[in-house]
Amino acid sequence: MAKLLQDSCNQDAIFSKFSHSSPANGGNGTHSYSNNSSYQRLFANVERDKIDQEIAHNFEIQKLSSSSPSNTLVLADMGCATGPNTFGTMQHIVNSMKRTFQSVCPTSPLPEFQVFFNDQTTNDFNTLFQSMPEDRDYFAAGVAGSFHRRLFPTSSVQFMHSSYAVHWLSRIPEEVLDEQSPAWNKGKIHYLGATETVAAAYSAQYAKDMGNFLRARAEELVEGGIMVIITSGNPDGVSAAGLPSGLLYNLLASTLMDMSKEGLVSEAEVDSFNLPIYITCPAEMRQLVEENGHFSIERMELTAPTTWIEGAVDTREWIDHIRAAMEGIFTNHFGNDPNIIDQIFERVTHKLEPYNEEVNSKLHEKVQLFVVLKRI
Amino acid sequence: MAKLLQDSCNQDAIFSKFSHSSPANGGNGTHSYSNNSSYQRLFANVERDKIDQEIAHNFEIQKLSSSSPSNTLVLADMGCATGPNTFGTMQHIVNSMKRTFQSVCPTSPLPEFQVFFNDQTTNDFNTLFQSMPEDRDYFAAGVAGSFHRRLFPTSSVQFMHSSYAVHWLSRIPEEVLDEQSPAWNKGKIHYLGATETVAAAYSAQYAKDMGNFLRARAEELVEGGIMVIITSGNPDGVSAAGLPSGLLYNLLASTLMDMSKEGLVSEAEVDSFNLPIYITCPAEMRQLVEENGHFSIERMELTAPTTWIEGAVDTREWIDHIRAAMEGIFTNHFGNDPNIIDQIFERVTHKLEPYNEEVNSKLHEKVQLFVVLKRI
Repeated sequence: MAKLLQDSCNQDAIFSKFSHSSPANGGNGTHSYSNNSSYQRLFANVERDKIDQEIAHNFEIQKLSSSSPSNTLVLADMGCATGPNTFGTMQHIVNSMKRTFQSVCPTSPLPEFQVFFNDQTTNDFNTLFQSMPEDRDYFAAGVAGSFHRRLFPTSSVQFMHSSYAVHWLSRIPEEVLDEQSPAWNKGKIHYLGATETVAAAYSAQYAKDMGNFLRARAEELVEGGIMVIITSGNPDGVSAAGLPSGLLYNLLASTLMDMSKEGLVSEAEVDSFNLPIYITCPAEMRQLVEENGHFSIERMELTAPTTWIEGAVDTREWIDHIRAAMEGIFTNHFGNDPNIIDQIFERVTHKLEPYNEEVNSKLHEKVQLFVVLKRI
Repeated sequence: MAKLLQDSCNQDAIFSKFSHSSPANGGNGTHSYSNNSSYQRLFANVERDKIDQEIAHNFEIQKLSSSSPSNTLVLADMGCATGPNTFGTMQHIVNSMKRTFQSVCPTSPLPEFQVFFNDQTTNDFNTLFQSMPEDRDYFAAGVAGSFHRRLFPTSSVQFMHSSYAVHWLSRIPEEVLDEQSPAWNKGKIHYLGATETVAAAYSAQYAKDMGNFLRARAEELVEGGIMVIITSGNPDGVSAAGLPSGLLYNLLASTLMDMSKEGLVSEAEVDSFNLPIYITCPAEMRQLVEENGHFSIERMELTAPTTWIEGAVDTREWIDHIRAAMEGIFTNHFGNDPNIIDQIFERVTHKLEPYNEEVNSKLHEKVQLFVVLKRI
C-alpha cells in the first residue's frame, strides 16, 4: 500500500500546484495545499544542484545586475500557489546567486533581489503573504493573473522559475466536451486511456498554452535571462497511456461512474468532466521552444524525481497531496458538497489498492522534465 | 442629522484605510471597506487636478522613463486597502503620465507602467486582486508589509502615492498604556481632549513612524522621483482638540464607558484602548521632511476635502464608512462579538445627534494636508 507513492514518478501532474480553472487549496486547513505539498517540494528539490550549476556557469550575474540602474536582480516564480514550497525554492535561488556573485565580484557590494510570486487571481494570496518567511533577504511582491499572458514589463525580469505549473491547461479543449465531435470523451476524464482524437485535442491545447506562455516570458525576460521549467514529462515515443497516470485517471473516472449509478452525481456531469492536465515529452517541448525562437535550450532532460523515496509511504498522505492540488477542479464541476468530494477521494484510494505492485515497479522512472532556457 | 458628514472635514483620520494594528475590513460584505469607502475617494479626488499639474510640470517623465532599461515607469500606492479607490487613483495617475509623455515626446512610444499596491500583510489582498479592473493598462503587483520599513529595491520607484494612510500610527505609545505613567490615558481613547502629556506621546510616536516612512521611501525613490501624500491635517498653532474629531473620540470613549457600566466590556479594556491615529499640521510635517533631508517640498497645503458635499448626507452611511476603516481596531481589542461591535457604532451614532449643528459649522474647514515631495 505504502508503495503507491512510487506511482508518483509518473504522476507528477496530479501533484501540481494549480490549474487555470481552479487554484490549489487555500488556507492552512486539513486539505490545504500549504499543509499537503511536501511531495511537490521534494520532487523539485531533485533539480537544485542543477539550478546552482546553471546560475554559476550560465547566468551572467555581473552583467545582468549592473544593467539595472538600481543594481537589482529581479526573479519570478510562475505558479507559486500559497507556499511554502515557493519560499524555499526562491530563497535557494537567491542564495545561489549571492554565492556566484561573491565569487565573480568578490569586492563589489551584493545586488539587491526582488522576487515576484505569480499565480492565478483566485489563488489564496492572503495565505501566501502571511506565511512568507520573516527572515527573507529579498523584496517580495505578488502578481495575480494567468501566466498565459503578459504579467511584467518588457525586459524587466532576469530569472524565472516554474515548477509543476505549466502542465495545467488553460482550458479543456472544446471538442472533448462536444457530444457531436469524434473527440467527445464520454465516460473518461483525461486523454490517457482515451482515443487518439482526444489526445490530439489535448496536445493542440497544450501547444497553444505553452506558445502563449513562452511568448509572454520572452518579452519579459532580459536578454541573457534564464528560465527554469520543471514539469511532468514522458519519454519521447512512449505513450503515457500505460503509465500509472492513466491508471489513476481511469480509476477516478470509474469512481465517478459508480457514483453516478448511485445517483450521487449525474452521468452528464461525469461525461462533461475532464482533467486539464497535460504530460509533455522532450521532443514536443523542444519543438514549442524552437517555434518561439527567442530561447536557446541550455538543458532539457528527463529525471527521476523520486530518488528521495525510502521505504513505505502512506497512501492516504499521497491522496491528500493529490486532493490539495486538485480538489478545486472537482468542486468547480461537481459542487461544494464535502460529502461528494470526500467520497471521490476515499473511493479512489480503495480502488488503487490492488495496483500497488504495478505502480511500485515504476518507482524509478524518469518522468520529470527539467528544462533550462536562455533568452537570446 | 444629515449634516454630520460635515464633521468629516475634521475627521479624515477616521475615514482612513488602514491601521498598522488592523487593516480595513476585507471582503465585499455589508461592512467591508470595498463597499464603504466612497468618502475617502471623494476626499482624495479633490487633489486630482493638483496631481496632474505636478506630473505635467514637475515630474521629469522623459528622463525618468528612459533611465529604466525597459522604458518602464514604476508607481506605488502605499496603504492601498482592498480597493476600489486605489484603482481609480492609480489609473488616473497613469493616464496623466501618458498625456504628459505624449505632449513631451509626441513621436516616442509610450513607456510601460508597473503599479505596486502596498498594504499590511493582514490586508485582504485576495479581494484587492479579484476586484482589479480588467481593462487596466499597467502591470500590477501587490506588496505586503508595513510601510514603516523598506519594501522595494533601492532607486526602483519613480512615483509614490499615499492617501489617508500615514496618519495611522504603527503602535500606541507605551506610556499611554502605562498606569504608572503621567501619560496614562484612563477613560479616554485618543489624545484629542486628553492631557498634553498624552498628546506629546502621540506626537513622538508619529515623528518616529514618519521618520521611518520617509527614510524607506527616500531609499526606494529614484532621484527626481515624486511622492504625493494626502493625510489628515490641522492648521499650525490651532489645537485639534476643539475639532469634531475630538468630539467623536470623546463620544466613543463615553459609549465604551457606558458599556463597561453595563458589564458589556470591562473598564480595564476601555482604559487600555486607544486609537492609533494622529493628525499632523504643516509645520510638523515640514520639520519631519527637513529632518530626513532627501526631499524637496514641492507643495504643502491644507485643503478642504468636502467641497463636493451638497445637501444632506446620511449619518448612518457616514458611520458605516468609519466602521469599515476602524472596526478591526475595535475587534482586535474587544473581541469578535458582533453584538458588541454593533452596539459601539449604533450608540455613538445616537450620541452624535445633538451635535449636528456644531459639527455642521465646520463643513468647509481645511483639514486635508496635501504634500508633494521630490527626491533630491
